[in-house]
Amino acid sequence: MSPPSATESATPEVRERIRASFDRQGLMRHLGASLGHIGPGRVHIELPRRPEITQQHGYIHAGATSAIADSAGGYAALTVFEVDSEVLTVEYKINLLAPAGGHHIEAVGTVVRAGRTLTVCQLEVFAVDGAERSLVAVGQQTLIRLPGKR
Amino acid sequence: MSPPSATESATPEVRERIRASFDRQGLMRHLGASLGHIGPGRVHIELPRRPEITQQHGYIHAGATSAIADSAGGYAALTVFEVDSEVLTVEYKINLLAPAGGHHIEAVGTVVRAGRTLTVCQLEVFAVDGAERSLVAVGQQTLIRLPGKR
Amino acid sequence: MSPPSATESATPEVRERIRASFDRQGLMRHLGASLGHIGPGRVHIELPRRPEITQQHGYIHAGATSAIADSAGGYAALTVFEVDSEVLTVEYKINLLAPAGGHHIEAVGTVVRAGRTLTVCQLEVFAVDGAERSLVAVGQQTLIRLPGKR
Amino acid sequence: MSPPSATESATPEVRERIRASFDRQGLMRHLGASLGHIGPGRVHIELPRRPEITQQHGYIHAGATSAIADSAGGYAALTVFEVDSEVLTVEYKINLLAPAGGHHIEAVGTVVRAGRTLTVCQLEVFAVDGAERSLVAVGQQTLIRLPGKR
Repeated sequence: MSPPSATESATPEVRERIRASFDRQGLMRHLGASLGHIGPGRVHIELPRRPEITQQHGYIHAGATSAIADSAGGYAALTVFEVDSEVLTVEYKINLLAPAGGHHIEAVGTVVRAGRTLTVCQLEVFAVDGAERSLVAVGQQTLIRLPGKR
Repeated sequence: MSPPSATESATPEVRERIRASFDRQGLMRHLGASLGHIGPGRVHIELPRRPEITQQHGYIHAGATSAIADSAGGYAALTVFEVDSEVLTVEYKINLLAPAGGHHIEAVGTVVRAGRTLTVCQLEVFAVDGAERSLVAVGQQTLIRLPGKR
Repeated sequence: MSPPSATESATPEVRERIRASFDRQGLMRHLGASLGHIGPGRVHIELPRRPEITQQHGYIHAGATSAIADSAGGYAALTVFEVDSEVLTVEYKINLLAPAGGHHIEAVGTVVRAGRTLTVCQLEVFAVDGAERSLVAVGQQTLIRLPGKR
Repeated sequence: MSPPSATESATPEVRERIRASFDRQGLMRHLGASLGHIGPGRVHIELPRRPEITQQHGYIHAGATSAIADSAGGYAALTVFEVDSEVLTVEYKINLLAPAGGHHIEAVGTVVRAGRTLTVCQLEVFAVDGAERSLVAVGQQTLIRLPGKR
């Protein structure tokens, strides 16, 4: 599993490109998600717990957990490609390990292997409450790189 | 793949129980999703396309597609158990086959096998535009049954 | 789920191409697997139960079940492409639903969507004992098409 | 990803129990697989490349790769439970990252989370050729614990 924090940052150009794309994702804004760390091959996305994203027992809905995990993996893949590439999720698999409570959840997408056409990412989601941090979901994702749309 | 429509309905008690649970899912309401058909071992959930649920190119975000697919499978599983059971998603895998455009998407969760502890569902999501209906995602989900919380 | 039998056959050229490839798979021969029905977008592979393919309780090992399911999906994909294409498994996910006993198991790979680059197949494995046929595994597979090696 | 080697060993009782179970897996013997390191929550299985386990291009068949990955995960789970437990694979997902060539492959199963009923493992498979070691497959597996059969 990945260390809870990673210090190396992506270049300003990469960070800017990812922030611009993230800001166009209506769903991330609607859920209340925000970008955290953007490193080479690794992106973090945070999502505060609030009633709008819960399931029937008040925990964060697996769909919200998955949504930020999927985006974190997609942007992690994007950090390793040149400027005018796009990546699309081909598929992912996610295990929900524990109810996601706490103050917020943080998804970490990490590139496991970047190929010419396909990229595989590891997805992890942590529930965070002050200094406590526990793994609540883990997944694996396949993405495809497309020539960029200029 | 499942037929686009199914006519058999679950009992009024089952339908009522599922509607009550669905109404407590903050995320479904926040996304704008609504319950469709509720049959024995099969549940449909619809989600209109609107800017709040898109990714960066204006298609429906994979996270929103997955969220309603996950809920559809969970409720399909719930239709086959007695009144005071609960089901939780253990894991799921989903392939995004095509960009989800159209007027709305419809997720169909179907029980493949219901066991004492674990249930497996097939997940399908269709993009619907008038009379057109095309498969945009397909998945497979494992759920665990828990004794109900009264 | 797919019907237990399918009657439409692929063309003789396609069947011949798939048989020739199957015969080069050392693992299929070593396990004792054989090709069954070869239809357009659907291929069956059978595997008799014997001690060489069991796990510690005498049932067929999930690895053997998966191996024929993976090959069935790969050949199903191959039926839909032109002569000099190759397909490779990108990933698959499989649920083992029940212990695989019986006389033999039969894997059925069915193309769900064939794209220019990626193809998605549904995988099903049945345990067969005389007239009895029960679903023991179900999966979903992603394959990539490569230009053929002449 | 896991470090290529791990030094902590499981207790002699655990190692003995796992070796005894492994020896009853007809498939592992038939493929030519052997147990490597057995640590707490981590088990390695090795498989030499030979014609009996190949696909049509001479690389190790995904089915053989998956089979030892599945067993490695299952035994990793078994290391963390008391003597008379059994574990069964519920499902797994595996990405084949690169053709598996080299002298042999080594699967590493690592427990990510062990629960009362369900356990999730990470699966990695490396191709090894002398001092070279490259990741050829990565997966994620769910297992269920059953009361032991005495």
